[in-house]
Amino acid sequence: MTPRLTIALDAMGGDHAPDMVLAGAEIARQRHPDVEFLVFGDEQRLLPLLGKREGLKAVAQVHHTTDVVSSHAKPSVALRGGRRSSMRLAIDAVSDGRAGVVVSAGNTGALMAMAKMVLKTLPGIDRPAIASYFPTLRGETVMLDLGANLECDDENLVQFAIMGAVFARTVLGVLEPTVGLLNVGSEDQKGHESIRTAAAKLRGTALPFKFHGFVEGNDITAGTVDVVVTDGFTGNVALKTAEGMARLYTEFLRRTFRSSLIAKLGYLLAKPAFKKLKTRTDPRRYNGAMLLGLRGVCVKSHGGTDAFGFANAICVAIDLAAREFNDRIKEELQRLGAQQAPDTQAAAI
Amino acid sequence: MTPRLTIALDAMGGDHAPDMVLAGAEIARQRHPDVEFLVFGDEQRLLPLLGKREGLKAVAQVHHTTDVVSSHAKPSVALRGGRRSSMRLAIDAVSDGRAGVVVSAGNTGALMAMAKMVLKTLPGIDRPAIASYFPTLRGETVMLDLGANLECDDENLVQFAIMGAVFARTVLGVLEPTVGLLNVGSEDQKGHESIRTAAAKLRGTALPFKFHGFVEGNDITAGTVDVVVTDGFTGNVALKTAEGMARLYTEFLRRTFRSSLIAKLGYLLAKPAFKKLKTRTDPRRYNGAMLLGLRGVCVKSHGGTDAFGFANAICVAIDLAAREFNDRIKEELQRLGAQQAPDTQAAAI
Repeated sequence: MTPRLTIALDAMGGDHAPDMVLAGAEIARQRHPDVEFLVFGDEQRLLPLLGKREGLKAVAQVHHTTDVVSSHAKPSVALRGGRRSSMRLAIDAVSDGRAGVVVSAGNTGALMAMAKMVLKTLPGIDRPAIASYFPTLRGETVMLDLGANLECDDENLVQFAIMGAVFARTVLGVLEPTVGLLNVGSEDQKGHESIRTAAAKLRGTALPFKFHGFVEGNDITAGTVDVVVTDGFTGNVALKTAEGMARLYTEFLRRTFRSSLIAKLGYLLAKPAFKKLKTRTDPRRYNGAMLLGLRGVCVKSHGGTDAFGFANAICVAIDLAAREFNDRIKEELQRLGAQQAPDTQAAAI
Repeated sequence: MTPRLTIALDAMGGDHAPDMVLAGAEIARQRHPDVEFLVFGDEQRLLPLLGKREGLKAVAQVHHTTDVVSSHAKPSVALRGGRRSSMRLAIDAVSDGRAGVVVSAGNTGALMAMAKMVLKTLPGIDRPAIASYFPTLRGETVMLDLGANLECDDENLVQFAIMGAVFARTVLGVLEPTVGLLNVGSEDQKGHESIRTAAAKLRGTALPFKFHGFVEGNDITAGTVDVVVTDGFTGNVALKTAEGMARLYTEFLRRTFRSSLIAKLGYLLAKPAFKKLKTRTDPRRYNGAMLLGLRGVCVKSHGGTDAFGFANAICVAIDLAAREFNDRIKEELQRLGAQQAPDTQAAAI
């Protein structure tokens, strides 16, 4: 029997915390009955909420703190002043081994900074990256970085490519993942120098994945590659532009069906099919951005999500732990390091 | 009576050139009977096509050349070797006053480089930018730069903001346009230094538009501002990500309606409404990216468009000329320069 997974929850992070966090934990517990929770936050608010959820209460342990990282706090301020915050204590629980994973819907910048300082990065990884799934025309694509590092050098991008590929193999189950670098054109001479250098490095290394070369914005949802690698600024803009476009289309569709009585009738007939579409494109299904490259599993939920969305973020964390993503990444980096060492020597001769 | 507008056409640029170019010119001529064309390209191919279009033939003058800028040529190569190309000769026609505007569906980088070298930038503008419309929840938003300048400093961004605002006022008819800088968050400390410096400059200047501050990717289609300003790398990725997302939704919708007989029937009922939606979101309607900041009107059509799309690009050029966009921009820059001069002196005292 595998040991039970303990999940540390920042109960005070997110627009609708702590209710949404506990309701989400209850949904996740029903899906995965073998997990338990360490819940960090204000017990005056948490205990009554737990009282209404007997099943969750039985597997949850509350750790009281009244400190909260505000959603607009600068990461540096949160690092200095937030040592007793619910977010920080939840991360500490992973650091000292009391929990296997941590999930928070709080301030992204603060979570990233705290997780990096407390958990540290994996050997061979200079900077962690935020990764998430995108729905595409042919399954799912993982994209990183989505906002942890606004400026990235070529070495960061190469490391993101390796992490993304290991993720695609271990979590998405793609045997030989394809990886693309996001650019403004597919030709070799296009784009910033860091991207071109990263491409040259990826082409020159024996990798456990297929480097596709450059991809463009439209390739993300086309599913051209399994992993799209980019810097955090571009990734964040692309993610939010895609979200905005989805909202625009949904609204246009709503207006279309309301434009005439006949169109409304058409909608009624197609309603069951539309429900399926809605389920498929529900942004809550894609909730749970992973902070990859840390010595510990840390998942960031969207701050504005509800219980269903937060439950999905918890399930993403459970998945990462179950697939032993961090162990696989370490192995991959060690193997690459061992491969590269003789090459470096050869080049020096 | 206003003088007729002469349009220089690069007849050989684009995947389906020259047929698509001439068919598009015919559509544009029917919409604007007071224009005439200078058509640059291979007369052996052009004359038979014109022979089939009497109306267009009467207002078109063919200038023969067999040189074509290939769609994959580097801009530097096109600049050196393309002096007799259809693209270059069409730009030359604007430069020496024989034409008022130039439209090409050819190689974007080459067009930008040639137009910049031949036409030169407007006084006060260091670099031209590519601008285009986006459909939004509340009308249309113009975004720039979409790919002319992969790296931009704060001064470039400020100039793009001014050009975008003048465009929104003169062409879109917005009395007091709002302008936002694309970033990864709305807080002051977010983003690259160039963006933060540009924001500080825009906040500190008496402008003929309202500077909204930072906007995020989802604000583009939300229509939060009339003008979205960004560097060419980010703008290009955002544009193509949005296009990809539109394609994904269209495909999901198609699958939804085909998923059952009842859903198919629903589609048949809602079909007229869907036709309207399709018309509204037709990417060909948004064809015609403007190269703003040049001493001359230059419009780039999508390379893969058809006659209808190319006609729209021609109409964008006609619109820019009719609204005297370049004169308005010059006035605005002069006014800003006059305003700033005393301030600079005061600061120096």
